[in-house]
Amino acid sequence: MITLSSDFGSPYPAAMKGVLLQGTDARLVDVSHAFPRQDVRSVAFWLREVMPYFPPAVHLVVVDPGVGTDRAALAVRAGDHALVGPDNGVLLPVARELAERTTEPEEPATGSGGDSAALDVFEVTYDDPASSTFHGRDVFAPAAAAVHEAGVGAVADADDLVPADRFRAVAGVRPADEWTDLRFPDPVVEADGASGEVLVVDDFGNAVTNVPGSVLDDYWGASVDVNGERVIVRRTYGDVTPGQRLVTVGSHGNVELAVNRGRGDEGFGIAPGDPVRLAFP
Amino acid sequence: MITLSSDFGSPYPAAMKGVLLQGTDARLVDVSHAFPRQDVRSVAFWLREVMPYFPPAVHLVVVDPGVGTDRAALAVRAGDHALVGPDNGVLLPVARELAERTTEPEEPATGSGGDSAALDVFEVTYDDPASSTFHGRDVFAPAAAAVHEAGVGAVADADDLVPADRFRAVAGVRPADEWTDLRFPDPVVEADGASGEVLVVDDFGNAVTNVPGSVLDDYWGASVDVNGERVIVRRTYGDVTPGQRLVTVGSHGNVELAVNRGRGDEGFGIAPGDPVRLAFP
Amino acid sequence: MITLSSDFGSPYPAAMKGVLLQGTDARLVDVSHAFPRQDVRSVAFWLREVMPYFPPAVHLVVVDPGVGTDRAALAVRAGDHALVGPDNGVLLPVARELAERTTEPEEPATGSGGDSAALDVFEVTYDDPASSTFHGRDVFAPAAAAVHEAGVGAVADADDLVPADRFRAVAGVRPADEWTDLRFPDPVVEADGASGEVLVVDDFGNAVTNVPGSVLDDYWGASVDVNGERVIVRRTYGDVTPGQRLVTVGSHGNVELAVNRGRGDEGFGIAPGDPVRLAFP
Repeated sequence: MITLSSDFGSPYPAAMKGVLLQGTDARLVDVSHAFPRQDVRSVAFWLREVMPYFPPAVHLVVVDPGVGTDRAALAVRAGDHALVGPDNGVLLPVARELAERTTEPEEPATGSGGDSAALDVFEVTYDDPASSTFHGRDVFAPAAAAVHEAGVGAVADADDLVPADRFRAVAGVRPADEWTDLRFPDPVVEADGASGEVLVVDDFGNAVTNVPGSVLDDYWGASVDVNGERVIVRRTYGDVTPGQRLVTVGSHGNVELAVNRGRGDEGFGIAPGDPVRLAFP
Repeated sequence: MITLSSDFGSPYPAAMKGVLLQGTDARLVDVSHAFPRQDVRSVAFWLREVMPYFPPAVHLVVVDPGVGTDRAALAVRAGDHALVGPDNGVLLPVARELAERTTEPEEPATGSGGDSAALDVFEVTYDDPASSTFHGRDVFAPAAAAVHEAGVGAVADADDLVPADRFRAVAGVRPADEWTDLRFPDPVVEADGASGEVLVVDDFGNAVTNVPGSVLDDYWGASVDVNGERVIVRRTYGDVTPGQRLVTVGSHGNVELAVNRGRGDEGFGIAPGDPVRLAFP
Repeated sequence: MITLSSDFGSPYPAAMKGVLLQGTDARLVDVSHAFPRQDVRSVAFWLREVMPYFPPAVHLVVVDPGVGTDRAALAVRAGDHALVGPDNGVLLPVARELAERTTEPEEPATGSGGDSAALDVFEVTYDDPASSTFHGRDVFAPAAAAVHEAGVGAVADADDLVPADRFRAVAGVRPADEWTDLRFPDPVVEADGASGEVLVVDDFGNAVTNVPGSVLDDYWGASVDVNGERVIVRRTYGDVTPGQRLVTVGSHGNVELAVNRGRGDEGFGIAPGDPVRLAFP
């Protein structure tokens, strides 16, 4: 199984599908091609939320504002999943999440050598791709097909990832010395409140924060102050009247600012990156 | 085969796909995730139009403004199809359509018991889903996978639908005492005209009414009055000049108000729910 | 494998998928259903760019402003691919491209008769489809399923394409005397410059011209005049600062006018069909 994630809209993802299907009979699953354009941070967030619900798969991720520059291409083994995409940080939060969820064997199987680490990052090298502007088609899709055909485990050993001749964009795979990481800011949780920020706004307008939902454990059915205004805390949108604001915990487990049948970002006047201060009464 | 329908946009449908693929190897077919947001009535219309073109399948439908409230979750057997979704009316029009199209056997096969009814509605019960705001992922997708694996026929007998351990959100299935129905308004057809309303407007701007296309049988190539204005009646958009208004019969068999290479809703100043009065000259 | 391309948005493509799946177990791959609405020329361009990346497949293409008029329906064999869609020019540029890429056998195989031509165009005839406004569902999808089941080679011989009973819309297939072609304008390339036009603008806002990228071979890292203004020439977007304009060669191999992390069409004040004059310093 290979999943596809990009900010390409239409029709560029189809060229990636064609290239994948030249190299593999794997099931292809579109995650989204409507990710916020060139917004590495938001996509990193969504991938971390969504991918753990998938069975083991190769995840092709192309949100790549640096396409054609000297930024590297990466293949990452994360537990029993693999990820292929640009070295701009988009892969690492989801890779850590997938690796952490993989139960490590108590004792390495005989002969497996040092292969127990759940996270391996390799650079995909390539020479002279057909374009400088569409590495999703010319570099990443061939690499993802090669990784799928070799098996995720092969991403722990460069020698196992020799590409087929047709994947000329992939000249080889070698361990990376360094790569671009991306970490989301930690919230500050105290006895009388919590401070964080809006990480993303979803298509419904719900503003997802980095504050863990557990801070609301004692306030279900009550109210808290959000950036100085009193707002009620409810389990779900339909618990308030249409158009009313609420504080809830979203499907990601974080505090979410929402409006029933409306847009939370507009109701709270808030956007990704904006600070959120919760004060408990 | 499992079809997916939602108003989620991006990227929430991917989490549902991941959950489904944890529980089944079925073919997944996206119907749409761009359905009008939280618009149960429009989605009920479109499902009724589209699903009869599918071979037997399990249809996962998540348009769910009441997510996390005490509205029930339903599994419906409709002929040789099954539907899984919230109890808000969205499933019933398509379920009746699919059930009516199923030819009932003249005589029940020996030993088949009373299983000849083409429409069965069950409640999917669940305890403590992972979220209160994303039952598509935490309740409906696991239920749809379980229904698919058990077979559509199993939806006639709760005992056959014991979920696998991984589908912890699905605690059991039992017959429903009642559920939310949804019926579209009947038009009034008379000798000199017909009265109805706009049910939906499609992406092209065509305004689909509830008036049966047969009322136009004697007026092809002629004209009728639409809300007091004379408009020509033609078989298809290209039969009039670009920008011109026409009355036609859409692919659903109903009277449709359209503009060639333009938007019918704008050309007629009309929206879903608005009355439409056709007068025959 | 059957690919689907349309300008239908949502949810009409799902009805086509259902009809296809009634007639075939083939893998279905969405190319796009967000193609520019009723814009035959843009879609013809994109199909020509994307389809060559696919392995052999049947391509269902429904961008059909003339639906229900007397425009013909076509089935085209192009090398080891087949295309099914309306006779409005949308199929021919991609068909020629696919046919040219197919290596002709040096000597026709014994007994293969005159079947070595890489491009065959047939008319799909049909009687009384269920609708006059949705031939994607009622004519083209059944025809595409029939072509897939018969095999692409069958499109060279009408007798091999007898539809199954369920494809009642397809009454037969016969060679076409004529069909609608579509050719993109040729650019004028001279020693001191090149003249062409904008063919399409992609979702990122990049303006794709018909001028071959090779005209920039001597100007990488330098500048050229675009419609009278000096603009730098770079390999990719990230080679200039965010918001800066550049001339580059897109993934299609043509000259492209772009803005790093912005929209080229806005930055250059240019739209499809507009003239582009490159002058080399």
